[in-house]
Amino acid sequence: MTGHIGIVGAGLVGAGWAIVFARAGHDVRVFDGAEATLAALPGRLDTALADLKQSGLISDPAAIRNRITIVETLGGALAGAQYVQESVFERTDVKRALYEQIDPLLGPGTLVGSSSSGIPASAFTGGMAHADRYLIVHPVNPPYLVPVVELVPSPATSEATVAQARELMTQVGQVPVHVRGEPQGFILNRLQGALLREAWALFEEGHASVADIDKTVSHGLGLRWSFMGPFETIDLNAPGGVRDYAERLGGLYLDIARDRTDPQPWNEELVARVEAERRACLPEQDLQTRGAWRDRRLMALAAHKTAAEQKDGT
Amino acid sequence: MTGHIGIVGAGLVGAGWAIVFARAGHDVRVFDGAEATLAALPGRLDTALADLKQSGLISDPAAIRNRITIVETLGGALAGAQYVQESVFERTDVKRALYEQIDPLLGPGTLVGSSSSGIPASAFTGGMAHADRYLIVHPVNPPYLVPVVELVPSPATSEATVAQARELMTQVGQVPVHVRGEPQGFILNRLQGALLREAWALFEEGHASVADIDKTVSHGLGLRWSFMGPFETIDLNAPGGVRDYAERLGGLYLDIARDRTDPQPWNEELVARVEAERRACLPEQDLQTRGAWRDRRLMALAAHKTAAEQKDGT
Repeated sequence: MTGHIGIVGAGLVGAGWAIVFARAGHDVRVFDGAEATLAALPGRLDTALADLKQSGLISDPAAIRNRITIVETLGGALAGAQYVQESVFERTDVKRALYEQIDPLLGPGTLVGSSSSGIPASAFTGGMAHADRYLIVHPVNPPYLVPVVELVPSPATSEATVAQARELMTQVGQVPVHVRGEPQGFILNRLQGALLREAWALFEEGHASVADIDKTVSHGLGLRWSFMGPFETIDLNAPGGVRDYAERLGGLYLDIARDRTDPQPWNEELVARVEAERRACLPEQDLQTRGAWRDRRLMALAAHKTAAEQKDGT
Repeated sequence: MTGHIGIVGAGLVGAGWAIVFARAGHDVRVFDGAEATLAALPGRLDTALADLKQSGLISDPAAIRNRITIVETLGGALAGAQYVQESVFERTDVKRALYEQIDPLLGPGTLVGSSSSGIPASAFTGGMAHADRYLIVHPVNPPYLVPVVELVPSPATSEATVAQARELMTQVGQVPVHVRGEPQGFILNRLQGALLREAWALFEEGHASVADIDKTVSHGLGLRWSFMGPFETIDLNAPGGVRDYAERLGGLYLDIARDRTDPQPWNEELVARVEAERRACLPEQDLQTRGAWRDRRLMALAAHKTAAEQKDGT
């Protein structure tokens, strides 16, 4: 694959993607239909690059910044691109209208990945001439700190498209996972949703406070999960591996699952109680400051993981 | 609270606890009914302390080691203790038989916490004279690297016992959470079970491989969860906090939950398929080596978190 990387949609997600590709040495051409969004882009990029530099995650922010160009038209982002990352507003009609513009402009070697976090590609690329070259490439925000991306092909996406997207994502330092069959929420949000469901239910039933449920993860379960997944965790948690673990604990987990067969919405009163406990820990006016703290901690963790992996050769 | 810390049950879990208490400056007296277990203890302690020293997590392993004494009788561990951590085999009859021995020996100021990961305290302390001073104090292994502990009182446990156990755990550097109502699996394993349930189902349905589900956590969800819990994560993931998040995404999560109303056992064929994918990543003969790798990574993560928290003042 040769050619630049196009970015269509230059909000928070698109800006993050521009950094990912430029950091890996690609020329990046960014388009957004909204002038205000484009006007905010240089500030977003400079702030993020300065933070990355300060955390030791990049050494030359100016060189990265110089690889990112704003273009005036959709065609300017698309023409000659090897890959285009689309990150426009998450609504099916908005995405479909855009892909109707993209489809006739698409050059022969160009793939398009959508940052959609929930709408499957079949919903907005179905029936198009180049549907074989469209797929979901769903990042976690910000993608330059959280490397996983979900590759979710539609039934029309070709295997070659998935393979090339995987190769590109690996080359730019992301960690691609392949999701088959367009499950609702893909897999990342389904896994998060499962944990949240139990967390909300435990709180609702009075078994623990919001803060204590959070601590159970942040000082317990989340430690291992920051460097190995749930299957590897249980594989290492019984002398004979995952089969041994399943024999010992499968029954317990089945019993627990059987307590949760009647999903309930997060109703107004429950949301108000969770919110009250969160606002007691973190006042509303501090949400933004705490978000910046989270990003600093993610940067420090990324630097730590890189060092640990280099040391281990993993 | 004054007096030493008693440890009853000196296997992997009990040895880990001995280090936690001795590291915090307590005198620790360890008893185990099995001579072979006691004979293995010094080796276990020395290995763990050497690893902690090498990771920079402790500075004087000999001083810690010298605070840990093996005693010959149950009474030797109990007499004059402020707190006893019980970590015997996880079977109700084994635990009940032990508490029947403990109960008449218990001094007036002594509390007993059980490391039970699933059996509630009411099942083996119910009806005893000192049931008000028994509770579950469930660690994650090894407790000197993973700080969360679940405090799970039985209906007979006094509030003063819970408060004192919380204070002691905080003082020795653990992070206590208070679990009410003895839910099956307490809260840590329920949260883990919820994530596992979705992970196994996604694999069973062919949506992703075991390795890709693991990567979704270890390079995605698990990063944030290693320093903030699921509620704080969503509270910071919408501009208006958790209420705003619930309004935006509550519907999606409810839909996802509605796909999972029919819990199924991890059947033989499914376990075999998961096992085959794990053994392709990690041959059986490497399980132990990988367990040692996990512990090194946990140590490096603990050192990283301590440094990050000191820098942030969090």
